[in-house]
Amino acid sequence: MPQSQVEAARLADGVWRQARIAPSGNPGQVILDGAMVVRDGLVAWIGSEAELPAEFRQAGLAQHDVGNRWITPGLIDCHTHLVYGGNRADEFAMRLAGASYEEIARSGGGIVSTVRATRAADEDSLFRQSARRLEALLAEGVTTIEIKSGYGLDLPAERKMLRVARRLGESYPVTVYTTFLGAHALPPEYKDRADEYIRLVCDQILPALHAEGLVDAVDVFCENIGFSVTQSEQVFIAAGKLGLPVKMHADQLSNIGATQLATRYKALSVDHLEHLSEADVAAMQESGTVAVLLPGAYYFIRETKQPPLELLRRYRIPIAVSTDSNPGTSPSTSLLLMLNMSCTLFRMTTAEALMGVTGNAALALGKADRHGLLAAGRAADFVVWSVESLAELAYWSGLNPCSAIVRGGRFAAVSQKEMS
Amino acid sequence: MPQSQVEAARLADGVWRQARIAPSGNPGQVILDGAMVVRDGLVAWIGSEAELPAEFRQAGLAQHDVGNRWITPGLIDCHTHLVYGGNRADEFAMRLAGASYEEIARSGGGIVSTVRATRAADEDSLFRQSARRLEALLAEGVTTIEIKSGYGLDLPAERKMLRVARRLGESYPVTVYTTFLGAHALPPEYKDRADEYIRLVCDQILPALHAEGLVDAVDVFCENIGFSVTQSEQVFIAAGKLGLPVKMHADQLSNIGATQLATRYKALSVDHLEHLSEADVAAMQESGTVAVLLPGAYYFIRETKQPPLELLRRYRIPIAVSTDSNPGTSPSTSLLLMLNMSCTLFRMTTAEALMGVTGNAALALGKADRHGLLAAGRAADFVVWSVESLAELAYWSGLNPCSAIVRGGRFAAVSQKEMS
Ligand SMILES: [Zn+2]
Ligand SMILES: [Zn+2]
Repeated sequence: MPQSQVEAARLADGVWRQARIAPSGNPGQVILDGAMVVRDGLVAWIGSEAELPAEFRQAGLAQHDVGNRWITPGLIDCHTHLVYGGNRADEFAMRLAGASYEEIARSGGGIVSTVRATRAADEDSLFRQSARRLEALLAEGVTTIEIKSGYGLDLPAERKMLRVARRLGESYPVTVYTTFLGAHALPPEYKDRADEYIRLVCDQILPALHAEGLVDAVDVFCENIGFSVTQSEQVFIAAGKLGLPVKMHADQLSNIGATQLATRYKALSVDHLEHLSEADVAAMQESGTVAVLLPGAYYFIRETKQPPLELLRRYRIPIAVSTDSNPGTSPSTSLLLMLNMSCTLFRMTTAEALMGVTGNAALALGKADRHGLLAAGRAADFVVWSVESLAELAYWSGLNPCSAIVRGGRFAAVSQKEMS
Repeated sequence: MPQSQVEAARLADGVWRQARIAPSGNPGQVILDGAMVVRDGLVAWIGSEAELPAEFRQAGLAQHDVGNRWITPGLIDCHTHLVYGGNRADEFAMRLAGASYEEIARSGGGIVSTVRATRAADEDSLFRQSARRLEALLAEGVTTIEIKSGYGLDLPAERKMLRVARRLGESYPVTVYTTFLGAHALPPEYKDRADEYIRLVCDQILPALHAEGLVDAVDVFCENIGFSVTQSEQVFIAAGKLGLPVKMHADQLSNIGATQLATRYKALSVDHLEHLSEADVAAMQESGTVAVLLPGAYYFIRETKQPPLELLRRYRIPIAVSTDSNPGTSPSTSLLLMLNMSCTLFRMTTAEALMGVTGNAALALGKADRHGLLAAGRAADFVVWSVESLAELAYWSGLNPCSAIVRGGRFAAVSQKEMS
C-alpha cells in the first residue's frame, strides 16, 4: 500500500459493538458482550456494552457491529530479519536434491549469498523485495513489527537495511522497531578477524547508525558458529554507552553462556532458547527478560531439541512467539502459522501462543506501554477475527480469518467479505 | 465468489508472452522463452515464443506480457475432506492444555463431534462453512480439487456433503471431483456393528448416491482404528459393480494389508503410507497406483515414521502431495504449505513436490487426460507465479506468490499487484 493510500485510509472512529474482546490477547481475560469506542486514533473507551457511557450512545457516532466476532490487539512480530536481498530457494532445492554443504558453499550459498545480494541491491529494490513479505504479514493482522539489520555487515549496507525498515514503517500501516544486528555473522572480508570486526561494529558502525536515528535496540548472534560471549559483551557495552536496550540470539544450537550474559545486561529478550538451562531461566526471571520462541526456525532446520517450556512456565517467564522471518532458516511470512507451530511442535497452549504475539511480544520489545493492550488512551491497533473461538487462530494453517484490521484508528485492511 | 461473478469473469484469451513455462509442472522440463495462446477456454498453442505461428501474431489478439514470470498448470489438491460442519479448535486447545482423550471424548470431541455438526448443518450453512476453506485454497492457485464425504455416515448427510461439494464446483472457478467415503468411521448408532454398517454403505448409501450422480470415486479408511481389510473389500466390490474407481486411506498408523488390497482392485491411489512395505510398493508399481503423501496430517499428529520415499522413488511410483484438509488431523487450507512440508519433513525435492500437486495429482485422480498439463487442446487452467525460481513455491511458507490464476480460460483471480 503506497503512502498516499495509508494517508487516505478510512477512519475507524465510532463504536465497535457486539464484540467479544480479549483486550490483552489473553483468552482467559475477555469481555464477552464487549464494546470499544475509537476516536482520534485511540481507544476512547472499552468495556461491557451494557456499560457504554451515555456520551458514546449518541446517534451521530459511527456504529461497527462486528456480529459477535472476536477482537484482539493487533499482532506483534517481535523478531524478524524481514529486509534482505534475494532468497535462498535454490539452495533449499539443492540441499533436498542431495547437494553437500560444501557444494552449496562452492555454488555461493549460505548466509554469504544473502549478504552479497543485500549489499548489491539498491535501496528501492531492497524496499520492494521486503515490502512483499511485509504485506503478507500485515494481511494476517500484524500492526507492529521488529526488523533487524545483519545482512549488510558494513556501514553502508547496514544503514541501507535500517533505512528500508524505517521506510516500510512510513509506507505501511505498521509500527516498525529497528534492531541493529551488525554482529550477526562475520563478513567475508573479515575472515579470521572476528575481534577486529567486533571493534568496527562497536566503535564505528553502531555509533554512526545510532546518530542517524536508525537504531531502537541492539542484538547479537552469540553462538559457537556466531560470536563468542566475550565478543558479544563488547557489543552490549557499546549499546549501553548509547543508552540502547539489548537482546540476544541465544542458546539455539548450543549453550555457551549467551543467556547468562544477556541477563547481566538486562536484555529485553533472549531468542530461540532450545539449549536453555534452568540456571539461565532463573537469571531471566531476575532480569525480567522475555523468552522469544521461534518455531519456524525449529521446524525449518528440523531441530529436535525443544526449548524448555516447562521451565519457562515454572519461573513465570513471559513467552513471546515470532516468525524469525529470514531467508536461511525461516523463510516464513505467516505469524498465524507460528501460532500453529508453537502449539503443534512446542506444545504451547493456544492461549500462550496468542499472548506470545500480543502482550508478551510487546514486552519483548520493551514497548508494553504502547502495544499489545486495548485500553482507554491506548492506540487503536486491533484485529476483528471471523472465528467462533480464539483457539482457531492457532488451529488453522493457511486460513486467514482476519475480518478487519485497524491500526492507529484507521482501517489497515478489510477482507472482501463484508461484516454482517 | 458467487456464481454470477464466475460467469462474468474476464476472458484470459490471447497470447501469454515472455513466460517461463513448466507445462507438466516438472521443473526439469521447461520452456524458458515461452508463449501460450488461450482461446475458447483452451490452450490453442504452447511453445517457444520465437516459434509462435503467424496466425497468433496478428495485432488483434490480446497480449499478456508476464515479465519473465513462471507459468505452471493450475494446482490440484487430490485428497481433501473440505466439506464439514464446525471445527475442532476447542478440542485442539483442550488437548494442549492437558486434557486426556477421555476428557475430550466426554466433552463431545473427536470425529463424532464433526459428524454431529455436519449432520446438524443445513446445506447452505455447510456450503458457507466449506466455501471459506475453498477460497483459501483457490487463492493459492488450486483449480482442481477432490472432496470426500465421510462425516455424514448416513444417507441424508452423506448426500448433503456431496451435494455441497458439487455446488462448490458450480459456484467457484474450480473443478470438483467427489469421492464417497461412507466407510470413514463407524457412526455412533452402529457401535459394535461395523459389518452391518458396511452392508448399509454397500447396499444402500453408495448405490443411491451414485444413482444421483454424486459419486466420482470411492474411498475407504482401512486401518486398525477404521475398517478391516475384509470390510474394505466389500466396499471396493460394491464400487466395482457401479463401475466406480477406488482409492484408499492406507498404512497411516499401521500396516494391515490395506495397500495390498487396494492394488488388487487397481486403486487410483493409496494415501498416507507411513507404514508402507516394499512388497506394497512393488504391488503399486504393478497396478499403476499413485502414492499420495499427506504431510499436513503427519505434522499435525506429530507422527515420526515417514513414508518410505526412497522405495517409492526406486519403484518409480508417481507421488502426489495433498492437504488432507480436515478438522481432526490436518486443519490446513494451504497447498503451498504442503509443498513446504513435503520438502522439509519428508525430504522430497522441490521438483517432486511441485509435480505432486500438478501432473502426479492428476494421475491420482485418474484424470491425467484432463488436468495437470498445459498442451494444445487442453483446458487453459494455469497459474502465473511472481517467483525467480519454481523452488520458491516450496521454499516460502505464508507467502503467496500467485500473480494470476486462469481456469477454463477465464481469470479466476488476479492479485492487487498488476503485472508489469
Ligand atoms: Zn533471528
Ligand atoms: Zn484423508
